[in-house]
Amino acid sequence: MTEARRGRFISLEGGEGAGKSTLLAGLRAHIATRGIDLVQTREPGGTPLGEAVRAIVLDPQARGMAAETELLLMFASRAQLVREMIAPALAAGQWVLCDRYVDASYAYQGGGRGQPLERIAELERWACAGLVPDLTLLLDLPVATGRARAAGRGEADRIETEADAFFERVRASYRARAVAEPARFRLIDAGQPPEAVLLAAIAALAPLFAGNAA
Amino acid sequence: MTEARRGRFISLEGGEGAGKSTLLAGLRAHIATRGIDLVQTREPGGTPLGEAVRAIVLDPQARGMAAETELLLMFASRAQLVREMIAPALAAGQWVLCDRYVDASYAYQGGGRGQPLERIAELERWACAGLVPDLTLLLDLPVATGRARAAGRGEADRIETEADAFFERVRASYRARAVAEPARFRLIDAGQPPEAVLLAAIAALAPLFAGNAA
Repeated sequence: MTEARRGRFISLEGGEGAGKSTLLAGLRAHIATRGIDLVQTREPGGTPLGEAVRAIVLDPQARGMAAETELLLMFASRAQLVREMIAPALAAGQWVLCDRYVDASYAYQGGGRGQPLERIAELERWACAGLVPDLTLLLDLPVATGRARAAGRGEADRIETEADAFFERVRASYRARAVAEPARFRLIDAGQPPEAVLLAAIAALAPLFAGNAA
Repeated sequence: MTEARRGRFISLEGGEGAGKSTLLAGLRAHIATRGIDLVQTREPGGTPLGEAVRAIVLDPQARGMAAETELLLMFASRAQLVREMIAPALAAGQWVLCDRYVDASYAYQGGGRGQPLERIAELERWACAGLVPDLTLLLDLPVATGRARAAGRGEADRIETEADAFFERVRASYRARAVAEPARFRLIDAGQPPEAVLLAAIAALAPLFAGNAA
C-alpha cells in the first residue's frame, strides 16, 4: 500500500462582513469539480470539544472574560482541531478548508486585545504541532463597510460587539501578517462583487491544484 | 480610607481519595472562628466560565482529548479565576482557600501527561498574573490507598479513570514540588485520621494567622 499524498490546507481569514461564508460555499463547489475530497471546518470549533469551547468564548452574555483566558481558549480549541481533525485529514490525502486558523489569534487576541505577539508565537509553536496552511486567503475590507454589511444579521456574538477601534487593529494585524508572509498569504479585496472575490480565490488556488495533479 | 491588608492565599493539593473535601470543611470552620472573611473556590472552575470549562475537561464521555488541549483548558480556567475572583478577594483583605491551583497542572498535565515543565512554567508566568499561594497544603497518600477510598463514590470523571501509573507520576510530581519549595509547601500524611490531618493543617496555618493579627 502506497502512502496517500498529503492533502492541502487552506485557511480563510477576514473580519466581520467580509464575505467568508459566501466564499467558502463557492470554494467548496469549485474544489469539488476537481474531484478532490475536501473537508471544511472552522475555528473556534470543528470538533465536539472545540464547539463547546466556541459556545463559551462567543457567548454574548459572558462579561469580563480576560484577554489571557480568551487566548488560551482559542488555542485549546485549535490544539484539539489540529490533532483530531486537520492533521489526520491531510495525512489521508484530503484537503482541509478552515474558516479561520492561527492568524486569527494574532489578529484578534494580538492586535485586537493586545496580547504580546511572542506569547502567541510560543503557543503556536507547541499547540499547532507545526501545522501551517499551504495557502491563507485574507478577505480585506474597510471596517465600516464590513460592519454595515453584517448589521442585518442576528444577534452579535461577544467579539462582534467590540468597538470599531478593535476591528481596525484586527484589520491592521491581518494586513501586516499578509505583508510579512507573501508566499503563504493572498490578500483579496473583499469590496469587489462576490463573483470577483471567488475568481481571485480560485486563481490563488491554482498552484495547489497543479501540485496535486503532478 | 486606608487600604485593606492583603488576604492570604491557601491552596490545597492532593490526589484522589486524599481527603481534600473533609479537610476543606474543617479548615473553613477553623478559619471562621478567627473572624476572618474567607472565600473558598476550586480548580478547574470557580467562575461561571471556569465551571463551563470544568464540565468540558472532566466530562467522562470526552474521548481523545489531547494533552495540549487539557493543559490549555486548565490554564484558561485559572487565568479567569485569578483575575475575576482570587486577586480581587485578596486585595479586599479576604482569605482565599482554593481546592487545587497551579501545582495541579505541574502534577497532572506535567507529571501525569508528560507536558514539558518549562511549558507549564511559561504559562504560569503570564496566565497567573504572578499570584503564588502563601501556603500550599499537600495531602500525600499512596495511590492504592487513595483509589480504594475513592472507589465508593459516584461516576469517575475523565481524569479519575486514568491508570495507576498515571497517578503514581502525579504523586511523584507533587512530592518533588514540595521538596523544591519547602517554604511554601506543607506535606501532610493523608493516611492519618481526619482529625490528625486537620490538626496538621491548622498548625501549618499558624504563621498566616500570626501575620494577620499584627
